[in-house]
Amino acid sequence: MTSSEAPSTSNGTSERRVPLSIDTINKRVINSEYAVRGEIVQLAQKIARDLGEGKGSYPFDKVVWCNIGNPQILGQKPITYFRQVLALCECPQLLDNPHIRELFPEDVIARAQLLNKAIPGGLGAYSDSAGALIIRQLVAASIARRDGHPADPENIYMTDGASPAVHYMMDLLLREPTDSMMVPIPQYPLYSATLTLYGGRLVPYLLDESAGWGLDVGHLRQQIAAARTQGLCVRAVVVINPGNPTGQCLSHQNMRDILSFCREEQLVLIADEVYQANIYVGNKEFFSFKKVAAEMGLLAEVPLVSLHSISKGFVGECGRRGGYMEVTGFPEDVKDQILKLASINLCPNLSGQICCALMMNPPQAGEASYDQYRAEKSAILGSLKRRAELLVGALNRLEGVSCNAAEGALYAFPKITLPDAAVQAAKQMGKQPDWLYCRELLEATGIVVVPGSGFGQADGTFHFRTTFLPSEEDIGHVVEALGKFHTAFLKKYGDAGTTQPQPQKLQPAAAVAAAPAGATDADNGH
Amino acid sequence: MTSSEAPSTSNGTSERRVPLSIDTINKRVINSEYAVRGEIVQLAQKIARDLGEGKGSYPFDKVVWCNIGNPQILGQKPITYFRQVLALCECPQLLDNPHIRELFPEDVIARAQLLNKAIPGGLGAYSDSAGALIIRQLVAASIARRDGHPADPENIYMTDGASPAVHYMMDLLLREPTDSMMVPIPQYPLYSATLTLYGGRLVPYLLDESAGWGLDVGHLRQQIAAARTQGLCVRAVVVINPGNPTGQCLSHQNMRDILSFCREEQLVLIADEVYQANIYVGNKEFFSFKKVAAEMGLLAEVPLVSLHSISKGFVGECGRRGGYMEVTGFPEDVKDQILKLASINLCPNLSGQICCALMMNPPQAGEASYDQYRAEKSAILGSLKRRAELLVGALNRLEGVSCNAAEGALYAFPKITLPDAAVQAAKQMGKQPDWLYCRELLEATGIVVVPGSGFGQADGTFHFRTTFLPSEEDIGHVVEALGKFHTAFLKKYGDAGTTQPQPQKLQPAAAVAAAPAGATDADNGH
Repeated sequence: MTSSEAPSTSNGTSERRVPLSIDTINKRVINSEYAVRGEIVQLAQKIARDLGEGKGSYPFDKVVWCNIGNPQILGQKPITYFRQVLALCECPQLLDNPHIRELFPEDVIARAQLLNKAIPGGLGAYSDSAGALIIRQLVAASIARRDGHPADPENIYMTDGASPAVHYMMDLLLREPTDSMMVPIPQYPLYSATLTLYGGRLVPYLLDESAGWGLDVGHLRQQIAAARTQGLCVRAVVVINPGNPTGQCLSHQNMRDILSFCREEQLVLIADEVYQANIYVGNKEFFSFKKVAAEMGLLAEVPLVSLHSISKGFVGECGRRGGYMEVTGFPEDVKDQILKLASINLCPNLSGQICCALMMNPPQAGEASYDQYRAEKSAILGSLKRRAELLVGALNRLEGVSCNAAEGALYAFPKITLPDAAVQAAKQMGKQPDWLYCRELLEATGIVVVPGSGFGQADGTFHFRTTFLPSEEDIGHVVEALGKFHTAFLKKYGDAGTTQPQPQKLQPAAAVAAAPAGATDADNGH
Repeated sequence: MTSSEAPSTSNGTSERRVPLSIDTINKRVINSEYAVRGEIVQLAQKIARDLGEGKGSYPFDKVVWCNIGNPQILGQKPITYFRQVLALCECPQLLDNPHIRELFPEDVIARAQLLNKAIPGGLGAYSDSAGALIIRQLVAASIARRDGHPADPENIYMTDGASPAVHYMMDLLLREPTDSMMVPIPQYPLYSATLTLYGGRLVPYLLDESAGWGLDVGHLRQQIAAARTQGLCVRAVVVINPGNPTGQCLSHQNMRDILSFCREEQLVLIADEVYQANIYVGNKEFFSFKKVAAEMGLLAEVPLVSLHSISKGFVGECGRRGGYMEVTGFPEDVKDQILKLASINLCPNLSGQICCALMMNPPQAGEASYDQYRAEKSAILGSLKRRAELLVGALNRLEGVSCNAAEGALYAFPKITLPDAAVQAAKQMGKQPDWLYCRELLEATGIVVVPGSGFGQADGTFHFRTTFLPSEEDIGHVVEALGKFHTAFLKKYGDAGTTQPQPQKLQPAAAVAAAPAGATDADNGH
């Protein structure tokens, strides 16, 4: 009796030594399919190490990371103003240096002085668990300007990137295994991963690829009814706008319909709005759900969580981990519980908090940094728009590939029709066909993209997600290499199959699962 | 059927609208007694706001935050070297400025150049989820120097402060409600809070106040046997060394015994070693559990997680959120699961990662910053030692108060014998007696301390935890005000009672609970 297997029930035995092994850890962790370290990304990391050390033999000289929205690793320069203010918050004694005005513009110095004075203890002290008051005030003021409706600093919770906000909501709303959330398919795999981790269920709703990844509220109603028939209790609906991986931007009317749906069904609306600054088409505009809810008079009736982040937009400060959530329509005693959850991790990092406040309150016309700030911002967004159009155009010229316009966000999510032989080859390997495509793409070109199965997709369709973040210098190479590979792939496996099932029409899902079917690989970033 | 109560079981009804309220959220969140926003801290925040706005009438002019290990909010200056390197990592273009050598020492510039080159994409890019390779290499090299045993960068996971490491272990090891961890009483309430949150059970072991908060391994054996009799499956034991809130520093032999206990009982050892730089007595020395395990040849046999942080020591960079865990003796496939958990939040913030690498690799003799660094470090640690001795000495001179020496960490945890009338008065308010003491202390003096009941304590004993972080200028005032208050409190409620039960001797706990009995209030920081 010196050792025993992990017991599955309490039985009062006096000897229960459970050695640590993969068989004795929490199964929800094992089942959580974030798959950041999925085989393709792992293989790419190995290749990158080999190339760095001059080892191995590959038909390319560098790995191109299109799997992840991580712009600064691909050479995007940070916004100078943000970094200058942050440097002076790090090192306030620089403000006393006689050379300081030769190194930093006037408004940078003034902003750093204000923040250093207003943040108790500065960057090195724990702030309030919801974030420093001055930061929350700056964020709230900016939201009010954006929406034309008031925002209350007491509703703002600063977060280390947007991800902790999702954890808070999962922790708060999921009580038992039948509690569930509606999540778009395709989705950002943070949602499926955390639902599994927190022991909840994913109720999928399909975005309609044939309608530009449109969100059909009638379909939401069908899906919630189907989920309830299966005994599930739906607590929330996640909407990603602009979409990830799909890039679509919701219309104002569509948002009104979603809010009405949430009110009728008493759902929390989790609005992932981290791509709000990334809109590339003239006929679309970002509206926040908060603004639309305010216009409809629904702020008190629909519990709404709006997420934002410094990692995306034109800011791209991924490694700093900054963001916030604005929480409206929540009872005060429930908000107290969110604060308690936040306090268990003490506070979000101050560097991320400050950067978030700066993102929301950039230099204004007439200030010393304004011209440079505006030029840097326009250059990044203009270039993203050009790269998005270039990439999507090129994808649509490939045989058997179709790709909706990237209206927003940082990704293209093309549909690829794969030869039957490729589908069979993948099946024999126990893999998804789009996984096979992505792996061969990596091995042939060094380009890392993520199989659509990592995000979920309609049965019988295959996709991959690629960022359009490689620099303008590099993106031409990516497009060219991708095209050559695609042609060779079709040649290797025969022409694009015509016998594959057509994509499903939107209809009630036959089953709801903890993770989208076939999720096998994803990326490590929005 | 437009609304219904939250169902407790799946029953397949087709209408299950569950409105958001305190009654329909996860009970584990509600039950989680971190109580950071407990009434005393909340009251102190209100008073601080009033004082700032010139409102209210209080017999003091400022709130003195002794509830939390947050040194920079009390005026401790950051280490200059760390901040200078961080400023140049924020703003690498400063390195090209002709004035740069007038502003920064040579070694700061060299260190920033090295880090900017070695961290792919710099501070603004997601790193590997375990942390940037160069950072993990620097941390591992430093651990190897500390212990005289090798450390592997592949065993290092950088974290946003030490708290995420605790979350990872809870998530990994707690499978069902009978899974449990052994936690010292008194404890840092992060452990009880996260155990409740993750649905596990706390198996307490009492530190022996009469033996300088000693840890008796015989008592550990009694407690694990008692827990197993109750059907619990014990997965891990938490040891905080130096102790929080108790400040004791474990002996080498005691550590050997604990490791043997973990090996025999197949427990994961979670070693909270965040106060390793805070030792104030000449006859004690910090040894890491990793070093002792290596000496005993147990590295492969005892799964060990060692936590460290930049928030404590002489660094005090709480707001930056930086730390690491070193994981040894874990199967590789279990480590893969930790990495997956880390990857769901993408990566720890780079500013915290860099600061952690700097803390572990400070300037060396002969480098330009060395003298200043050494002077700043010695001044902080020397002052902490003087303040610890001053405070503990003063506490021991108070009637009915006894306090073990603060061998390490940042806190004193005096035992207070309270008048029977005070115990009865608290009882009538539905509060713990030490809560009443702490509230009256706040109202009389502005000093914020945390009731011992927030950390757990032997039945029939009362304590409070106070930091000795107020500056040397202020600590005299704190000691004086505390003494005056204590005398007045005894006078108000009559002399210190002699009828209170004596502290329990160490014995198997009658019950094991998800949180220590009487936990009602705590702080928001280690």
